[in-house]
Amino acid sequence: MTIGHELNSREIECWGLLELRLQGPSEGNPFKEVELGAEFVYKHRVVRADGFYNGQGQYIIRFMPDAEGEWVYKVRSSRKEWDGAEGSFTCTTPKEGNHGPVRVRSAVHFAYEDGTPYRPFGTTCYVWTHQADTIQEETLESLRQGPFNKIRMCVFPKRYSFNMNEPDCFPFAGSRDEGFDWTRFNPVYFERQEKRIVQLQQLGIEADLILFHPYDQGHWGFDRMDAETDARYLRYVIARLGAYRNVWWSLANEFDFMQTKTMDDWDRFFRIVQENDPYQHLRSIHNGTKMYDPANLVLYDHNKPWVTHVSMQYWELTPTTAWLKRYGKPVVVDECCYEGNLPQRWGNISGMEMTARFWDGFTRGGSVGHGETFLNPEEVIWWSKGGKLQGESPQRIAFLRAILEEAPWNAVPIERMRDAPAIGVEGEYYLQYFGLHCPAYRELALPEDRSFRIDLIDTWNMTVASLEGTYSGAVRIDLPGAPYFAIRATAAAAEQAGMSS
Amino acid sequence: MTIGHELNSREIECWGLLELRLQGPSEGNPFKEVELGAEFVYKHRVVRADGFYNGQGQYIIRFMPDAEGEWVYKVRSSRKEWDGAEGSFTCTTPKEGNHGPVRVRSAVHFAYEDGTPYRPFGTTCYVWTHQADTIQEETLESLRQGPFNKIRMCVFPKRYSFNMNEPDCFPFAGSRDEGFDWTRFNPVYFERQEKRIVQLQQLGIEADLILFHPYDQGHWGFDRMDAETDARYLRYVIARLGAYRNVWWSLANEFDFMQTKTMDDWDRFFRIVQENDPYQHLRSIHNGTKMYDPANLVLYDHNKPWVTHVSMQYWELTPTTAWLKRYGKPVVVDECCYEGNLPQRWGNISGMEMTARFWDGFTRGGSVGHGETFLNPEEVIWWSKGGKLQGESPQRIAFLRAILEEAPWNAVPIERMRDAPAIGVEGEYYLQYFGLHCPAYRELALPEDRSFRIDLIDTWNMTVASLEGTYSGAVRIDLPGAPYFAIRATAAAAEQAGMSS
Repeated sequence: MTIGHELNSREIECWGLLELRLQGPSEGNPFKEVELGAEFVYKHRVVRADGFYNGQGQYIIRFMPDAEGEWVYKVRSSRKEWDGAEGSFTCTTPKEGNHGPVRVRSAVHFAYEDGTPYRPFGTTCYVWTHQADTIQEETLESLRQGPFNKIRMCVFPKRYSFNMNEPDCFPFAGSRDEGFDWTRFNPVYFERQEKRIVQLQQLGIEADLILFHPYDQGHWGFDRMDAETDARYLRYVIARLGAYRNVWWSLANEFDFMQTKTMDDWDRFFRIVQENDPYQHLRSIHNGTKMYDPANLVLYDHNKPWVTHVSMQYWELTPTTAWLKRYGKPVVVDECCYEGNLPQRWGNISGMEMTARFWDGFTRGGSVGHGETFLNPEEVIWWSKGGKLQGESPQRIAFLRAILEEAPWNAVPIERMRDAPAIGVEGEYYLQYFGLHCPAYRELALPEDRSFRIDLIDTWNMTVASLEGTYSGAVRIDLPGAPYFAIRATAAAAEQAGMSS
Repeated sequence: MTIGHELNSREIECWGLLELRLQGPSEGNPFKEVELGAEFVYKHRVVRADGFYNGQGQYIIRFMPDAEGEWVYKVRSSRKEWDGAEGSFTCTTPKEGNHGPVRVRSAVHFAYEDGTPYRPFGTTCYVWTHQADTIQEETLESLRQGPFNKIRMCVFPKRYSFNMNEPDCFPFAGSRDEGFDWTRFNPVYFERQEKRIVQLQQLGIEADLILFHPYDQGHWGFDRMDAETDARYLRYVIARLGAYRNVWWSLANEFDFMQTKTMDDWDRFFRIVQENDPYQHLRSIHNGTKMYDPANLVLYDHNKPWVTHVSMQYWELTPTTAWLKRYGKPVVVDECCYEGNLPQRWGNISGMEMTARFWDGFTRGGSVGHGETFLNPEEVIWWSKGGKLQGESPQRIAFLRAILEEAPWNAVPIERMRDAPAIGVEGEYYLQYFGLHCPAYRELALPEDRSFRIDLIDTWNMTVASLEGTYSGAVRIDLPGAPYFAIRATAAAAEQAGMSS
């Protein structure tokens, strides 16, 4: 059976976006009344993806192929005219810079699907896609220049301190004054976000999409929809956005501040996402309260099987390694306070402190998220609206990222290196960070049978000083007795090691 | 009955030192064989004090009277010649600067016995009295110039990193090579310490005497004496040193590192001190390990009735207010790392960080202890041996002390002032510290019916900037958006307040 449907292209790069477009009825409520999807078949494998209604009689099925070669598909729909329609396309070699979606690679690490290591250097602009276009363009330019490869951002608009501007567009049909039609989405709202997600993808930035958040308090009511609407919303978002390879699902920001949702609701949301996402993008959930006492943290149980990695709000990094052990999943401390000068204590640490927290968390085996909260008369504050970065930490985060990109991908916490956090691979590489501690020297126990180059890293001034010669066994390294230094020991090349052994 | 005994004076200022000297046998072992003490009677009250043998046939009974007027005494001894000997002396008005011993005044505060408020600004020179005299003199000069009114110091010598010099004198007769006679003390050893305790007293400094510590590891064996020797040692120390008004009893440093002592031993030691000290000097005990997780701290139970106040080693000050509540006793965080550059992480924080920890702990209602650990070729490191101070924190601690001496004595944690530690007296005085946080402004909820002067305190640069005018009710105070600032709000004088209400 052949019926009229279009493909965006018959050649789609691996992890690129295939789009199947169909024209159909606009009467009634197509969001509710028309079921649509397709089975995509690659050799022995069948992947089912839901379609969605895009308004004005347009229906779309999106798909992200993950294997090069020929794919065929068959449409499935409650509309008899469409059901069974078939077609095919070719999945081609990914273009440069396309490494596929980010996956969990080990109990500590992430990697892109093509195996390229990925360490999250995230920032936070919660509702940047709901601001004026000029600000959104500014945000993209800041991101292009900045060190970040992940951004936390909300699907829903936000109402909060310094965020009282009403968006001009909503995810549901209707308006706050007239009431929303909870059975009809507003495709324009999502098209705008999709455009930005693609732009992030081009910048190599993962979109850590926050599906629910409490910064609504009933003003619009997106924080207190009924269970059926919640589920329909999740499936619509997955159908629209899931085929973008750089999407992650953050079930919520500060989930525990959402008093209308229970732990059972969060479990159910996770399962809806898990069951409906054909690509199994990363899934996590971010906590709000109870972060002052690690023993009494009331957290979502990150051990649950649908949680792919730990997303944590916590204002010190000390427990990072313990969390890695407890959960056996990568740990991202997405929020550890922001560089800025807000009156709220979560938004007024110095660039020096932000930088120190990044080093602290990364050298404990986790990763750390950035945010910036400097007051300004326009109330365009990076952490929420984006715009321009003015802090002192981003360039230091870039420096740290460059250091870690030279580190082995499989570096893990080295707990025998007492008294200061360290990551590395035994016998190959060690990176230890002293934070606010100011030792005048440091004794290292390096392997006896291999020689190491040693670098002294000034994390604030962003310099790397290589010590003369090579080192083995028990060595004493003089340090400047000042805060914010790190030591790196890297095994000399294999042939050299061979010579010395 | 009258026998030959001498008094150091027949007029002793209140909380001064009366000394009754008797000449007796030097044969046998007077430390063990001669029981000696006296009952001191003031009106209806009888206080019993033990004497001690001072070598060369000299026996001494020391006593600290605590009430002005006539006192009589009667000697009690196993020597029939002495038993029942009587005498009297006059207790006179204390001289300037003598406020008596420090007592616990409330669940939060200390005060001298005459009611003068006392806030501990302690430092640590563990074994300064066991070093060369020139160094001891240097230490005293440093203390004279410094901001400290308490010092932690060990009765026993110490063997530890940077402390490998053998003392020339020991608390027991004998030597390490020949063995110690555990039944005989060495009076010369104690005389030297007494001399220094008196000099501290003249400087207004409390001697927080550490009775046991683990930095011996069997080298001399003072950390592993048998129960009888431990008890005899404690009673000898109390008899010799208890009458000095500036003595405090710290049962141990890092008690939990002493593997030969059990929790029952520590209970017993506390009870021996409690039962034998006629003056009920302050008693505490200081922990070593398990300080990285407040929920799993293995501490001595400071709720036990013989513990007068909480002595804590902990490397952050956040739990201070919680400890005040849990124990209902003043909290002294005696060790929160030291300013310096040692390789060990407890000994290498910056002067800026040390200063910040002082402000943090004091504005949470506790007090904080100082130490300094800068490497030098002579290995004369303040924290252990004394000598000269070179850090950046002491002058800032002096500044903080001056600020707090202007505060009401009864300032307590003000927990309603969220987000940053604050102490004060509601309606009268507020002192809030922002630490590493950099708010651009702060909203304060001051009482409506009273006007306040507001000062902005730069804790690092040691400046106080008074804002123009007075403030009431909800006010917004601009801040510099930089770390290490505090705000102080002080109610204007009562008549002014009267005018504005």
